[in-house]
Amino acid sequence: MKCRVCREPAVIDVRRHNAAFCRDHFLHHCQEQTRRAIKSQQMLAEGERVLVAVSGGKDSLALWDVLLELGYEADGLYLGLGIGEYSSASRDAAAAFAESRGLLLHEVDLASQYGFDVPGAAAATRRAPCGSCGLSKRHLFNSVALERGYDVVATGHNLDDEAAVLLGNVLRWETDYLARQYPVLPAAPGFARKVKPFYRLGERETAAYCVLRGIDYQVEECPMAEGNRHLGYKEVLNTLEDRSPGSKAAFLFGFLERAHERFADDTVEERDALRPCAGCGSPTPGELCAFCRLQERAAPGARVPVELGPTR
Amino acid sequence: MKCRVCREPAVIDVRRHNAAFCRDHFLHHCQEQTRRAIKSQQMLAEGERVLVAVSGGKDSLALWDVLLELGYEADGLYLGLGIGEYSSASRDAAAAFAESRGLLLHEVDLASQYGFDVPGAAAATRRAPCGSCGLSKRHLFNSVALERGYDVVATGHNLDDEAAVLLGNVLRWETDYLARQYPVLPAAPGFARKVKPFYRLGERETAAYCVLRGIDYQVEECPMAEGNRHLGYKEVLNTLEDRSPGSKAAFLFGFLERAHERFADDTVEERDALRPCAGCGSPTPGELCAFCRLQERAAPGARVPVELGPTR
Repeated sequence: MKCRVCREPAVIDVRRHNAAFCRDHFLHHCQEQTRRAIKSQQMLAEGERVLVAVSGGKDSLALWDVLLELGYEADGLYLGLGIGEYSSASRDAAAAFAESRGLLLHEVDLASQYGFDVPGAAAATRRAPCGSCGLSKRHLFNSVALERGYDVVATGHNLDDEAAVLLGNVLRWETDYLARQYPVLPAAPGFARKVKPFYRLGERETAAYCVLRGIDYQVEECPMAEGNRHLGYKEVLNTLEDRSPGSKAAFLFGFLERAHERFADDTVEERDALRPCAGCGSPTPGELCAFCRLQERAAPGARVPVELGPTR
Repeated sequence: MKCRVCREPAVIDVRRHNAAFCRDHFLHHCQEQTRRAIKSQQMLAEGERVLVAVSGGKDSLALWDVLLELGYEADGLYLGLGIGEYSSASRDAAAAFAESRGLLLHEVDLASQYGFDVPGAAAATRRAPCGSCGLSKRHLFNSVALERGYDVVATGHNLDDEAAVLLGNVLRWETDYLARQYPVLPAAPGFARKVKPFYRLGERETAAYCVLRGIDYQVEECPMAEGNRHLGYKEVLNTLEDRSPGSKAAFLFGFLERAHERFADDTVEERDALRPCAGCGSPTPGELCAFCRLQERAAPGARVPVELGPTR
């Protein structure tokens, strides 16, 4: 197995591209795919300040690293979800990465700043924890970005993540979710721009990127996500990918190129009807935004205007 | 397990409907689902002549039976594909069903009437046989229906078939196929109407229908289809259905209700540009239609105007 570029011994193959790479050309491949994603989707303009949503896992740490390598000004935001040992090890990985490179990592802790954590939210809502977790992340990444003057929030969602979400949305034909599924969500009043610069890289690639760059990341999957639907969709797509390499990329990229625009109208009406949340000021179609409603259920009495904590 | 309708002991459960049925109420359920499909999609009008595409398998024989039970005038068409023992056993099942009820079964034999069979077409085209087979079926069901004065061709495609085809089309975002995937394709110059009255019934249901009605059908799957993509998609959907009963129906029906119309424009242009095939007169975008081109490759020299054989 030789590197596609230099013909030296390869360290990894990427079946989807029918290619193998040596260490240096693999790192270059990851950076190139990211650069191409950013450019083709106009994710980032020169001089913009990027806030990277950092979980401490392979995707977010690789993304932060690649964005810096590509010359962007990127700080991190770690969100403490309160999922026991998993969360503390994740935080350690994020903090160690930031410290080793002298980077700015903001931290928000759900429990101490909002009075609840993800296990508590799951218990209070009697629903799977992933719903409350995703809701809290979306809300806090956005509000921290706006309050601290970032132009854009970048998340580490990779090709496998996006394809699995797409499969779930397509299996139920959730047309409003399909309308919003895109690697860039433009800024709007009360919303920072959201970008997914890794949507062209598989999770095997982001993991290998970390290993080859010597980045220590949290290897464990979230224990609360075990057996959830999203992981089931990933399994199904892996089965199809094994039979026919490139299936996942064809599925996701084909959607973006030929189908997404057909669903785009489904969000317009919603955006028109938003007003500021009575609790936190975020745009919402109701009186209270979904995050404040969650806080009301999971931490009754805690919903007072909360000052964001100091940055590290 | 008791019948949902009469509380007598049930013989079958239908998890998707969270219901079980006794023999009689299960047969009624199958007929009702078919009646509902026909009515909601305006598949058949009173007094129309229906040509059922009969393979000898569970779906097509159950369909023929249900259509007769519902009072439609329906004849059958069996197409001899030349797939060895599989084809002859399939023909026997179709002929026995017709004979036992005094029904009219037309027969067309690829080898004797067109000079090639499906294995020969696969060898000549060096491609999977399923492509040539599907093409031949579509062409001949349509042309026989037009020549013999039928208003509509009915095929036994069930919920599992349609969901698997949809999954394949969605995974590659084949927008032109998505535009054409619907339980009714209206008639057009040179095209009889095509309907799929079983799109609301799973294949487990059509099999049980045959068993409970005492219909002997060809149980074997086509040996040439083994390992094809379509069967892989069925497996994947079965995995999802096991985890979450009703997934398949939600996928197919959601597409029909909320997504199909978004792709409908993709066929219009094609239809506009059709002209009669130089070989057989069927509408085609090129000089020769795909079936005549296939015949030219698989049976060089055989492509002369062929009289259709006598009916049984």
